[in-house]
Amino acid sequence: MTIRIGILGYGNLGRGVEAAVRQNPDMELKAVFTRRDPQALRIADAGAKVLHVDAAEGMKDEIDVLVLCGGSATDLPEQTPKYAALFNVIDSFDTHARIPEHFASVDAAAKKAGKVGVISCGWDPGMFSLNRLYASCILPEGQDYTFWGRGVSQGHSDAVRRIAGVKDARQYTVPVPAALEAVRAGRNPALTTREKHTREVYVVTEEGADRARIEREIKEMPNYFSDYDTTVHFIDADTLAREHAGLPHGGFVIRSGETGAGNRHIIEYRLQLDSNPEFTGAVLTAYARAAYRMAQEGMSGAKTVFDIAPAYLSARTGEELRARML
Amino acid sequence: MTIRIGILGYGNLGRGVEAAVRQNPDMELKAVFTRRDPQALRIADAGAKVLHVDAAEGMKDEIDVLVLCGGSATDLPEQTPKYAALFNVIDSFDTHARIPEHFASVDAAAKKAGKVGVISCGWDPGMFSLNRLYASCILPEGQDYTFWGRGVSQGHSDAVRRIAGVKDARQYTVPVPAALEAVRAGRNPALTTREKHTREVYVVTEEGADRARIEREIKEMPNYFSDYDTTVHFIDADTLAREHAGLPHGGFVIRSGETGAGNRHIIEYRLQLDSNPEFTGAVLTAYARAAYRMAQEGMSGAKTVFDIAPAYLSARTGEELRARML
Repeated sequence: MTIRIGILGYGNLGRGVEAAVRQNPDMELKAVFTRRDPQALRIADAGAKVLHVDAAEGMKDEIDVLVLCGGSATDLPEQTPKYAALFNVIDSFDTHARIPEHFASVDAAAKKAGKVGVISCGWDPGMFSLNRLYASCILPEGQDYTFWGRGVSQGHSDAVRRIAGVKDARQYTVPVPAALEAVRAGRNPALTTREKHTREVYVVTEEGADRARIEREIKEMPNYFSDYDTTVHFIDADTLAREHAGLPHGGFVIRSGETGAGNRHIIEYRLQLDSNPEFTGAVLTAYARAAYRMAQEGMSGAKTVFDIAPAYLSARTGEELRARML
Repeated sequence: MTIRIGILGYGNLGRGVEAAVRQNPDMELKAVFTRRDPQALRIADAGAKVLHVDAAEGMKDEIDVLVLCGGSATDLPEQTPKYAALFNVIDSFDTHARIPEHFASVDAAAKKAGKVGVISCGWDPGMFSLNRLYASCILPEGQDYTFWGRGVSQGHSDAVRRIAGVKDARQYTVPVPAALEAVRAGRNPALTTREKHTREVYVVTEEGADRARIEREIKEMPNYFSDYDTTVHFIDADTLAREHAGLPHGGFVIRSGETGAGNRHIIEYRLQLDSNPEFTGAVLTAYARAAYRMAQEGMSGAKTVFDIAPAYLSARTGEELRARML
């Protein structure tokens, strides 16, 4: 039985999900829904329909899981509960402070409809959260560290682009090697924001822009840069296009804890990703399978990665998993 | 409500579980069961009983989860199904080839009794298996690598101790740094056994033993050493006691996979453990909580780490986990 997937929103993440579905033989992409003109949208999968978002409801019997690829600020708080009334859904909602209310609204809609709604999936929130949970349950007396990067932060890149005189920009978040080493060595350092990460910014300016002012405005920008050691590089548009076109990311979740009479243990989970949206799309796709399988078993309501037994992510049976992977 | 724990078998692993229970305020150690004379056994926890194993059945209403700390060769195949008929149980059964039959016998006994029996828990099988599963579901097109060490292999240490003229020995399994780097760099190397790990042996010999013969016997021992580059160090008993008393271990589970048009992603899980039995005991203790909570919800039968939603490992509620850890 093939799991029929729909994608709502065809930006970087939507394309990442499409690519991941192609790698899973038990899945098929049925349709991509867009708010743009469907005629104008070219997708990679020739077998899937491209439809306006208003046509989604009419497809509810042809799609097993709808993957919501919109943004957390305004799209998902509205879309996820709305579509959980019609489909099993999954999203990558990442506004940490609003997760409790998002969970509640998706849970109500999904339970009423007898559907499963997986929220806040991806790698952070997602795989990083899972690793924080497992590690803290195993080592209750310990300390957690999360480092991000080296990778592109879209939010920080956007913030730099809003500065007058900036034509384009790319911002990399970089973990400080000495901090990482101190954590790995079990020294449990108390680290300030500045000690954990540095920021590197590559900026293309308008003709005649005041670079000294731009650099100052970046470095002094509150929340985004003022608490970090930031390096600003001015480059031309060609160099930006050639050397900074990708969206790599990654990071480290480390727990350092003790047991018994002072025995130290370090649990480290590390991601090195060439493409943040493709990896996030791959995580969403694996959890889309889980949503489908849980719904098949009669479960319903909102779920997070914490609530989903790992076996549900796999197309293999329990017997196969125990024989091959345990 | 306190989770009442029993421990069957008070070797290194049993002591590791005892130490872990002390770190979890929602748990209490009720009894340690031993095949030895209970009068002769001193345990660390003054509040717990020390009883002969024959007294276990009589304690079935006073213990919520019995943690089985015996060996995989002969103890667990008999003990886990036997005690799953009386208690929620958990074991660290690690004979990979026999997992299917062990699962089946524990499943039958536990289902009949309405109990949960978690098998093959710890770090390998256990946390390493989990990470292989998650990573392979996220990156279906990729390659898995597991490296063990640097750490003490008890099986290899015992094999050396059986050689004539050897008084004591300690064997370390060591991952080859170049192999690890090639994997981390995404080069997906095909690695032979010899290319992945080296072995280091520290040997204390009897007076007048033929060291050249002992070294040769170690290096040529089939299965254990002949496929590896092995270094043998002869040391005295004091040095062994001083520098090699611990049981450190650890290792790496790495998946290197591609998505889309050749974007590479590396997922790495790493453990660095000062004490293998204490860490294994800590994993078993977290999963003992899961066994208890799943049984409270009416589940029964054999489970592995694949079947257990991560939230069950935690004493926190779903709301707390979403607010703090997601």
